[in-house]
Amino acid sequence: MDPFYGPGRNQLFVPGPVNIPEPVLQAMNRNNEDYRAPPVPALTKKLLADVPKIFKSTTGTPFLFPTTGTGAWESALTNTLSPRDRIISFEMGQFSLLWIDQMKRLNFDVDVVHCEWGTGVDLEILRTKLEADKEHKVKAICCVHNETATGVTNNLAAIRTVIDDCMHPALFLVDGVSSVCAIDFRMDEWGVDVALTGSQKALSLPTGLGIVCASPKALEATKTAKSLRVFFDWNDYLKFYKLGTYWPYTPSIQLLYGLRTALDLIFLEGLDNVIARHTRLGRATRLAVEAWGLKNCTQREEWYSDTVTAVVIPPYIDSTEIVKRAWKRYNLSLGLGLNKVAGKVFRIGHLGNLNELQLLGCLSGVEMVLKDIGYPVKLGSGVAAAAAYLQMTTPLIASRV
Amino acid sequence: MDPFYGPGRNQLFVPGPVNIPEPVLQAMNRNNEDYRAPPVPALTKKLLADVPKIFKSTTGTPFLFPTTGTGAWESALTNTLSPRDRIISFEMGQFSLLWIDQMKRLNFDVDVVHCEWGTGVDLEILRTKLEADKEHKVKAICCVHNETATGVTNNLAAIRTVIDDCMHPALFLVDGVSSVCAIDFRMDEWGVDVALTGSQKALSLPTGLGIVCASPKALEATKTAKSLRVFFDWNDYLKFYKLGTYWPYTPSIQLLYGLRTALDLIFLEGLDNVIARHTRLGRATRLAVEAWGLKNCTQREEWYSDTVTAVVIPPYIDSTEIVKRAWKRYNLSLGLGLNKVAGKVFRIGHLGNLNELQLLGCLSGVEMVLKDIGYPVKLGSGVAAAAAYLQMTTPLIASRV
Amino acid sequence: MDPFYGPGRNQLFVPGPVNIPEPVLQAMNRNNEDYRAPPVPALTKKLLADVPKIFKSTTGTPFLFPTTGTGAWESALTNTLSPRDRIISFEMGQFSLLWIDQMKRLNFDVDVVHCEWGTGVDLEILRTKLEADKEHKVKAICCVHNETATGVTNNLAAIRTVIDDCMHPALFLVDGVSSVCAIDFRMDEWGVDVALTGSQKALSLPTGLGIVCASPKALEATKTAKSLRVFFDWNDYLKFYKLGTYWPYTPSIQLLYGLRTALDLIFLEGLDNVIARHTRLGRATRLAVEAWGLKNCTQREEWYSDTVTAVVIPPYIDSTEIVKRAWKRYNLSLGLGLNKVAGKVFRIGHLGNLNELQLLGCLSGVEMVLKDIGYPVKLGSGVAAAAAYLQMTTPLIASRV
Amino acid sequence: MDPFYGPGRNQLFVPGPVNIPEPVLQAMNRNNEDYRAPPVPALTKKLLADVPKIFKSTTGTPFLFPTTGTGAWESALTNTLSPRDRIISFEMGQFSLLWIDQMKRLNFDVDVVHCEWGTGVDLEILRTKLEADKEHKVKAICCVHNETATGVTNNLAAIRTVIDDCMHPALFLVDGVSSVCAIDFRMDEWGVDVALTGSQKALSLPTGLGIVCASPKALEATKTAKSLRVFFDWNDYLKFYKLGTYWPYTPSIQLLYGLRTALDLIFLEGLDNVIARHTRLGRATRLAVEAWGLKNCTQREEWYSDTVTAVVIPPYIDSTEIVKRAWKRYNLSLGLGLNKVAGKVFRIGHLGNLNELQLLGCLSGVEMVLKDIGYPVKLGSGVAAAAAYLQMTTPLIASRV
Repeated sequence: MDPFYGPGRNQLFVPGPVNIPEPVLQAMNRNNEDYRAPPVPALTKKLLADVPKIFKSTTGTPFLFPTTGTGAWESALTNTLSPRDRIISFEMGQFSLLWIDQMKRLNFDVDVVHCEWGTGVDLEILRTKLEADKEHKVKAICCVHNETATGVTNNLAAIRTVIDDCMHPALFLVDGVSSVCAIDFRMDEWGVDVALTGSQKALSLPTGLGIVCASPKALEATKTAKSLRVFFDWNDYLKFYKLGTYWPYTPSIQLLYGLRTALDLIFLEGLDNVIARHTRLGRATRLAVEAWGLKNCTQREEWYSDTVTAVVIPPYIDSTEIVKRAWKRYNLSLGLGLNKVAGKVFRIGHLGNLNELQLLGCLSGVEMVLKDIGYPVKLGSGVAAAAAYLQMTTPLIASRV
Repeated sequence: MDPFYGPGRNQLFVPGPVNIPEPVLQAMNRNNEDYRAPPVPALTKKLLADVPKIFKSTTGTPFLFPTTGTGAWESALTNTLSPRDRIISFEMGQFSLLWIDQMKRLNFDVDVVHCEWGTGVDLEILRTKLEADKEHKVKAICCVHNETATGVTNNLAAIRTVIDDCMHPALFLVDGVSSVCAIDFRMDEWGVDVALTGSQKALSLPTGLGIVCASPKALEATKTAKSLRVFFDWNDYLKFYKLGTYWPYTPSIQLLYGLRTALDLIFLEGLDNVIARHTRLGRATRLAVEAWGLKNCTQREEWYSDTVTAVVIPPYIDSTEIVKRAWKRYNLSLGLGLNKVAGKVFRIGHLGNLNELQLLGCLSGVEMVLKDIGYPVKLGSGVAAAAAYLQMTTPLIASRV
Repeated sequence: MDPFYGPGRNQLFVPGPVNIPEPVLQAMNRNNEDYRAPPVPALTKKLLADVPKIFKSTTGTPFLFPTTGTGAWESALTNTLSPRDRIISFEMGQFSLLWIDQMKRLNFDVDVVHCEWGTGVDLEILRTKLEADKEHKVKAICCVHNETATGVTNNLAAIRTVIDDCMHPALFLVDGVSSVCAIDFRMDEWGVDVALTGSQKALSLPTGLGIVCASPKALEATKTAKSLRVFFDWNDYLKFYKLGTYWPYTPSIQLLYGLRTALDLIFLEGLDNVIARHTRLGRATRLAVEAWGLKNCTQREEWYSDTVTAVVIPPYIDSTEIVKRAWKRYNLSLGLGLNKVAGKVFRIGHLGNLNELQLLGCLSGVEMVLKDIGYPVKLGSGVAAAAAYLQMTTPLIASRV
Repeated sequence: MDPFYGPGRNQLFVPGPVNIPEPVLQAMNRNNEDYRAPPVPALTKKLLADVPKIFKSTTGTPFLFPTTGTGAWESALTNTLSPRDRIISFEMGQFSLLWIDQMKRLNFDVDVVHCEWGTGVDLEILRTKLEADKEHKVKAICCVHNETATGVTNNLAAIRTVIDDCMHPALFLVDGVSSVCAIDFRMDEWGVDVALTGSQKALSLPTGLGIVCASPKALEATKTAKSLRVFFDWNDYLKFYKLGTYWPYTPSIQLLYGLRTALDLIFLEGLDNVIARHTRLGRATRLAVEAWGLKNCTQREEWYSDTVTAVVIPPYIDSTEIVKRAWKRYNLSLGLGLNKVAGKVFRIGHLGNLNELQLLGCLSGVEMVLKDIGYPVKLGSGVAAAAAYLQMTTPLIASRV
């Protein structure tokens, strides 16, 4: 028996790991099998053909690492760069900060652009830096698409425009951990060289797959990249792709079948419909926050995230108490504020296999917690604002019309 | 792939079958096994010791039939009565009506008391009938504790008082399908002779177990009961109980393990806490209905049900459309109006392994559907009313304090 | 933790319930849902179209009762016959005996033909009885296709020939519990009027579905059948079939999805291939028994069963000890001898979703148990005999060629 | 539907991934949850207390990396060594070879001792090398405990004795991927500094956990180890251990609960009983191989592996065909010969949650395949030899006595 048992279903609204849909649980409920027999290569082949679609790429090469997002980061960097290569990166929250920390520890020369938490990439600073880099010492621009700590979504198309304007050859490496399959991500169109995500985010799987997609230019870069790498080496995968066995070491059979089903569900709904659903849920959440009289940690609308909303609470409240109480009283899991915004924000994750009523249940829970904790919220106000919008915009479920 | 797939979790708010908690799904996710080997008898023995607790009985003998509630009804009747025995029963909704229909088809002489749908047992009529029955021709009084079609909960203690006042020896047979494990049920205290429920209701299991509990007086009655019965015969079970093998035919292994876990969860939470949770959710639902300006099908507060609320909608709306639209647009499953109240009411089931935020998600969905369908509801009003009550009354989750 | 835990997989070789294949477990690993919403009727409709195929019937009407084989028996009898109707039935083992017991208790006038356990239907006795019944007082001939207690398979085609020869109008009711989906069953060709099986046998599901298929003649008989029935009444089902809602009471959602997958697997393999696999496994088992120097309880080859083999052991051994020891030492589940053959035979069930190596593992276990218990078996002898046959006859797995 | 579907259960006898027991599948059949809420740290804390027990260590510090064995290798090396550090390692099969390849690519100076495949560590060569290394330039001795490609188990105690005899301070790093939880592993007693395993081997979980255990000396070595590492850095874990949150990045919730159950099962059976079971199954397998007239790839008894047996087949047969045919005809998964022994050996994995009858089923399958492929095996011979041994040595299942 679970020592923390509470009746009813946990409302899981952290920005990852997220709810796993029943068909994925079913697909993963299976024994191990021999990964060298024909079924696993056949399954993998089809997965590799389909995974680039979630990045909207037709030219990218995908890698399914048995790892987490942190490992996917490492794979992106070490396969394309050499020690002491210069990287421009933007610190705007806990996850961009951690990636930068990783870059430094991997011995890259990181030019960190510190952004205020709650803001996104400053395109003008990027432009200035690239223009100044006449010798093209900058080898890569690394950007978190959606900063999960603050709910900031960066404009990758605009970044690409700046790079192109400067005719800069740097690689463009993007963390899409909390955006891919939820926020529009156009790898080819935006000239992203390495895109990556993790299985436990909008794909709605358990943790355990670090999914990387590399552009032809990124693959070319591996030839000169001198960073040491073995576990995370793309070349080992490429060698096994050619052999048709696909795996340099043992994959998780269960996650592969789970990924198959997760992709099937996304394609069944339609990737753009999935994205539209996230847009809808994101906006509904922001309307609720506004109705509560609270501020979004994200400072400008252009950066609003459709997968996570970081809600700023008044200084007399500790947001950690909100998260604790939500879990202790309402079986509601919200995201903590991290690092610079610890205690100051709490986060609502609204990504993955999720629908309108689940979100409204969460929002009603947040209202009750706010009241519990002493914030003068009008119960029902946020739900009403969100519902007013959702009632106008939610489409009929396509399969049920 | 599910041909009716919709993203996110289905909000299951029909008054049964209800949501199955994850630990129960886990326990049932198993291969078959030999039911004559020691584990199944050992498991059964413990289940039989525990099942009477959900009826608050220390003297009852339980039977776990591989059947549904309809089969449990049949078992209750045929084991205690003989053809042409007189029964007093109360028709007050679709399920009491169906039970009465069964009684007639089983060749009993049923004295049906027709109650207006939305009302409960008229104690004075019962008293009059029993007083008039000087010869004790009435062999059983059959009552549905909670009429699922209308959301009417009858006062079993009061019925017992009437029977006792009349010093009438009739058996007292009670359908507790949508009450047991959710609404207080005191079999011994109220002198219930046969109580029964189904696994898919407040026990939160799949359908497949018809759970019957018989008082010593009911067991005594089997000796003279001449109704034909084989599959539903208690005596076969009793014979196998004595042998220690417990099963006259093959049980569902999965349901037995599931029942074990379901009971463990109920005992972990505490049966009275489970009942209190249902009281809370029931009241919250009624507050929402009131806030929407709608009427409860149940005509008097004394009969309000804490497991299902039948909501009367204005005559210009067809409640069937509400149920259809809830499912097609919001992945919300509500109960239809049945028979006499078809088209006139829709039902919200709020029973089983369920918590406050799940209910609020449902209520917010109902609001949106009402608006969709042309009822002038103020979005957020019901949720606000329910939340105001829940925020004051919901206890901390005991295991997390 | 399982109080009877043993390492590795239980070798389940009782003649039911049998091993559930992984895809069926996956399909059943799901939450409840509203059975009145469109998915369950759509699923049911397709199931009802497919279920007659396992009986090789194009004219039969199927019923999926939430019950066991015992309930299916009761349904077959009460829907087609009236109290005191005469039935001819054959007692040749525990299950035919139990069915006959049920017939008597249901108040039918049963003309029981006692066959020696280990033999099958005596066609000449049947012929004599039918010829003598000039007035057609015999309303039904009830036969167990495969007597699970002794491993006797009756020749239904030959019985039909006798009935036809006598131009007798009696209904032909057949228990196919341990034969359907494993031993060839040709309902239409053999003029079977009611055929029935249980989900936990060759369909390889959990217990919980009593599957009945009724010929047009059987359906016609319901119109005059006066036996009381409610839960098991076909007419209620037929009424709901017409309405397109299909269920007079709540079905097990999980079993319906499980049945869908079970049928899909059988059709994928091909029903006749499934039957051929059982023929192969049955013969292999008998070769092993012969190699051990033991006798088959079934007295003549014509009655050999391809789903269960009852092995007669020397009188100085108690077969119950074999079953106990198999389970206690080798995690092997064998069938006990029942009633007249208790202590004298043990049974090997070889039905359902099972393959050659699983059977050989079982046979090697039986050898070890025999040795344990003092029978002078040559270890490896039975496995060798079975393997010699299987190695010559097992086809390549079609999907892997 | 599985495009490679075959009836019955796959006989999984590759040396990993291995069969997952039902209780582990049940434990893993769950939704995601917030890993920062109290349950995951509480669960992790207990896991970290228990994991060293499988290494028989009371002083080791465990790390549960979301990775595979290859990642665990990398973690062991990079946390304890600096680039160009000298390592002595032994190449004796595909897995030791791959680890050595990793060492080279990670820029260590590897002194490779090439052993004939089928032999183990040559202790005298090791002694000579260590004695010659007066300056203690050798920083680590890396050894695969059980070489999965050839079925060679090295004597770690003897290696430790050599190291101690030479009073050499080198770290002793051991790959226990296919030995831990199956072959006796005494980390503390044998002075192993880093031991590691993978979840999909004898722990009988899905792939996805690289489990590392570090001695105090190894932890001390991290302070000076200059190898770049981020994802695989122990220090990040140690930091989070201190904080009580335990995870520097998102773990797989499902694998943690699965590991909990896997450990519970091992402790319930008793680790030494688990090891004894493997000893028994290993010996039974070798007796079968001998009976077939085939040779074990392992050249001396002292190296015989109790988790995998590599069987040498006559030169006129291609072992790849054996593996293919086993899968295509008998649904039996055997291990291929790899690299130098490709085509020459096939492998039987006999590790993890496995029992006697499962093994005998496998062995009977191998016999049939051998016959299929043209090897003159006497069917039943291997099974007989194995069974003769198992029938004498298999204990009663403790919980069932």
